[in-house]
Amino acid sequence: MNRNLMLNSIRTRMPEKRYVHTIGVMNTSIRLAKVYGGSEKDVELAAILHDVVKYSDREWMKKVIVEQQMEPTLLAFHHELWHAPVGAYVAKHEFDVMNQDVLNAICYHTTGRKGMSKLEKIIYCADMIEPNRQFPGVEDLRQQDELGLNELMKACIKHSIEFLITKNQPVYPDSIHCYNDLVTRKEND
Amino acid sequence: MNRNLMLNSIRTRMPEKRYVHTIGVMNTSIRLAKVYGGSEKDVELAAILHDVVKYSDREWMKKVIVEQQMEPTLLAFHHELWHAPVGAYVAKHEFDVMNQDVLNAICYHTTGRKGMSKLEKIIYCADMIEPNRQFPGVEDLRQQDELGLNELMKACIKHSIEFLITKNQPVYPDSIHCYNDLVTRKEND
Repeated sequence: MNRNLMLNSIRTRMPEKRYVHTIGVMNTSIRLAKVYGGSEKDVELAAILHDVVKYSDREWMKKVIVEQQMEPTLLAFHHELWHAPVGAYVAKHEFDVMNQDVLNAICYHTTGRKGMSKLEKIIYCADMIEPNRQFPGVEDLRQQDELGLNELMKACIKHSIEFLITKNQPVYPDSIHCYNDLVTRKEND
Repeated sequence: MNRNLMLNSIRTRMPEKRYVHTIGVMNTSIRLAKVYGGSEKDVELAAILHDVVKYSDREWMKKVIVEQQMEPTLLAFHHELWHAPVGAYVAKHEFDVMNQDVLNAICYHTTGRKGMSKLEKIIYCADMIEPNRQFPGVEDLRQQDELGLNELMKACIKHSIEFLITKNQPVYPDSIHCYNDLVTRKEND
């Protein structure tokens, strides 16, 4: 499916504000791919589809998680997390995306995970720092961009975890594994 | 072994400052047991022994972890975590402690875990708030004491995780499971 058809297809599934956010993630992720290397086509595809089921029916998402035998602990956590793995499922089965790295970037864009690929990190970070995002601390995150993709990723996952803890919200274990991975590894992007 | 013999036995294994801390944990945990219920004898025993191997040889601790088939991921984390499960091992095999709840309270006093018993929570919290502890925020933690043991425990584990994240230090997964457990459960102490 070409880019414009895909954009039209996702636009009907979400409020205009979320569509504008998606375009922001797309542009930011392409910019990050230019800086840090990686296929611009792949980041574009992952960015367009990352929130494809964000506004889909919750019971339907739960059904997909169960039927597709996704990680069952997902259901014990907030439904806000579900749209990422279910989005990867839809990307594969409705949009015919076969690139596993693109599917993983969609799947882990809300939690992160241990051993993320460059593409996964780019989508995770672009989702947090794209220009339409407004939350306390977002400017500090945008500045980490200059220190490299791992530093940016580390700042983003730290911000997510700290935000959840401040709000007494559960932290999905993959996010801690992601954080631990980033603070203990030495190599660069 | 009676209390005084046990105190003499641990005193020779640690700097005086750590011994004073241990007495602080003992007194604080007895106070908490009076408030929240629980055996004062059990908290006293767990408190006296909680840091018994804190200054033991690191290679020896590693050997115990491997030989006793303790959780192998421990070795991938900071050695500071090792003295808790190895302390439980020494409590059992040198001090003949057979009460599994006391052993668990020693074992999980640095990381916490999901589904902690009242005794485990008392030792974890007493270790953080005993009167000799001095760190930014300790007074706020002491005040949580008034809100119940689960609130105190939640405040303590949040403080630990936030401190580690601020310092870019890894967070042992049990601590996140502990935190998630506390923020998602509804019942009281």
